[in-house]
Amino acid sequence: MSDLPKSIHIYEQGPREGFQFEKGPIPTARKIELVDALSETGVKHIQVCSFVPAKNVPGMADADEVAMGFKRKPGVRYEALAMNAKGLARSISTGRFETTGIISLTASEAFLQRNQKRTLKQNYEAQHQIIDMYKEHNIPIERGSLMAAFGCNYAGDISVQHVLDMTAQIFDLAAEHGLTIKVLNYADTMAWATPQSIKKVIGAVREKYPEQRLSLHLHDTRGMALALAYAAMEMGVDVFDSCVGGLGGCPFAAHKGAAGNICTEDLVFMCEEMGVDTGIDLDRLIEVARLAEDIVGHPLPGSVMKGGSLRPLRERAREAA
Amino acid sequence: MSDLPKSIHIYEQGPREGFQFEKGPIPTARKIELVDALSETGVKHIQVCSFVPAKNVPGMADADEVAMGFKRKPGVRYEALAMNAKGLARSISTGRFETTGIISLTASEAFLQRNQKRTLKQNYEAQHQIIDMYKEHNIPIERGSLMAAFGCNYAGDISVQHVLDMTAQIFDLAAEHGLTIKVLNYADTMAWATPQSIKKVIGAVREKYPEQRLSLHLHDTRGMALALAYAAMEMGVDVFDSCVGGLGGCPFAAHKGAAGNICTEDLVFMCEEMGVDTGIDLDRLIEVARLAEDIVGHPLPGSVMKGGSLRPLRERAREAA
Repeated sequence: MSDLPKSIHIYEQGPREGFQFEKGPIPTARKIELVDALSETGVKHIQVCSFVPAKNVPGMADADEVAMGFKRKPGVRYEALAMNAKGLARSISTGRFETTGIISLTASEAFLQRNQKRTLKQNYEAQHQIIDMYKEHNIPIERGSLMAAFGCNYAGDISVQHVLDMTAQIFDLAAEHGLTIKVLNYADTMAWATPQSIKKVIGAVREKYPEQRLSLHLHDTRGMALALAYAAMEMGVDVFDSCVGGLGGCPFAAHKGAAGNICTEDLVFMCEEMGVDTGIDLDRLIEVARLAEDIVGHPLPGSVMKGGSLRPLRERAREAA
Repeated sequence: MSDLPKSIHIYEQGPREGFQFEKGPIPTARKIELVDALSETGVKHIQVCSFVPAKNVPGMADADEVAMGFKRKPGVRYEALAMNAKGLARSISTGRFETTGIISLTASEAFLQRNQKRTLKQNYEAQHQIIDMYKEHNIPIERGSLMAAFGCNYAGDISVQHVLDMTAQIFDLAAEHGLTIKVLNYADTMAWATPQSIKKVIGAVREKYPEQRLSLHLHDTRGMALALAYAAMEMGVDVFDSCVGGLGGCPFAAHKGAAGNICTEDLVFMCEEMGVDTGIDLDRLIEVARLAEDIVGHPLPGSVMKGGSLRPLRERAREAA
């Protein structure tokens, strides 16, 4: 049997993924309420919002107010997403975030063309300016990310070799700028991964970069998110992006009504039941998932908030024994 | 990397699990429509209904009409569930089923007491009469089953040793009556399993009975069904009970609104994407899942029927290339 990691690091992205995706409008105070509630669950890393043009993402028009409004809890790392210099300047001006720079490539040219009107080569070149921009603001660049790493709705299957080539490009960029990638993230942006492809890709990356810490960004569009996370943990992956309640989705993904990101409390439940520490209080997190449902005003796809944790059942069984 | 089975056998139980669980009433003709639609998907094994007292399970009051009404497709094995002599006699009198006898034990005494008012010992003893009943009707007894094998809402955790002890009892009963268990099923009746506990239990059983074909009955109450199935396939398990659309649930399981059984089309999707053959046409099965949703009149928990298969996306990508 494969050894699972002793603990995992969860990067909670529900507030950003969720409110970016929801049709809304959702009052700013309620967005802040969700961030503050998350801060009390034991989660150590929260992506609060993104600084993007309001005309593109209306749900993030109040990002500055959210940024200024939430309570910073000591020991929790708060980040905001920024896609360009203007967004980054807005994020920095709030003084509320521990921003980390990311070298971000995308495995699918068809997806890039569609969403950023760039070729793979243009996207590679664009990273130089992005890195310079981070450096100007004295922001450490510690992360690499590869989007659409397991398949693409517009390009189809993505080969393991192509993932390795794109990964090498991330390291080339880092080397050229004297940077060290602390965490390398692979995103299954359009939910093409299977447990097997996770093992193939992570296995190939591990073989080439055995010491590199890896992270996954998973979607539950086809119900497999926990199976993917489990397969990844079997390969030693110990960092996961996730969203409370399963908030979010991919607006580019050509399917409506599909599930969003891997659900934080479902992931926490699976981990804690297997003895993998998350540092998160599951019962509190389930309450936050219900709060998230109340805030967005429709059912969220998370399972454990409906099925319940096993703690009260174990307690009842002990009392009855 | 573990080898996955080349193919799996799916035992579709949606019509029985679903209509047993749904509040209904659902017209008999629509139940028949679902069975007939399933017969056209390539699924080779369908549990059509159960012959149980209508006062206990109103949704099965029309089991005789359903049994007489569906079209038997050559190459598909149809079964019905019967819990006692009266039910079995009803099932046999229809002349429509290839019934297999089951030696069925339950790992949790608290659960047994609650649902059948029996101790573990009484339940063991009761199997003798059940076996005699099958024999009287010349029904082959080829299956063993252990319910609540991974945990119980009333008894709490179930140890691997206890599962091994209960498994030994199934083989003792078989030996005493000169029977051979072809498939031994473990049911996660109340959704307590994790991928890790699946591996522990299946691993321990495999070590003691290396040649025994094993099967799993899984629930998706806590979102882990596909992760459990994947972990089981990594251990060589190649028979799964499942329900189209994720129909069903466990009325005894002390939670409302929770997901039902592992969803057939989600399982088929995961398998086919990993090169594990199911013999099932996924696109047709997705249509049947939508039919099931229409029949029960509310959304079902299946994911792939919302997220879609990758076939049309691959085709579009090929055309665009």
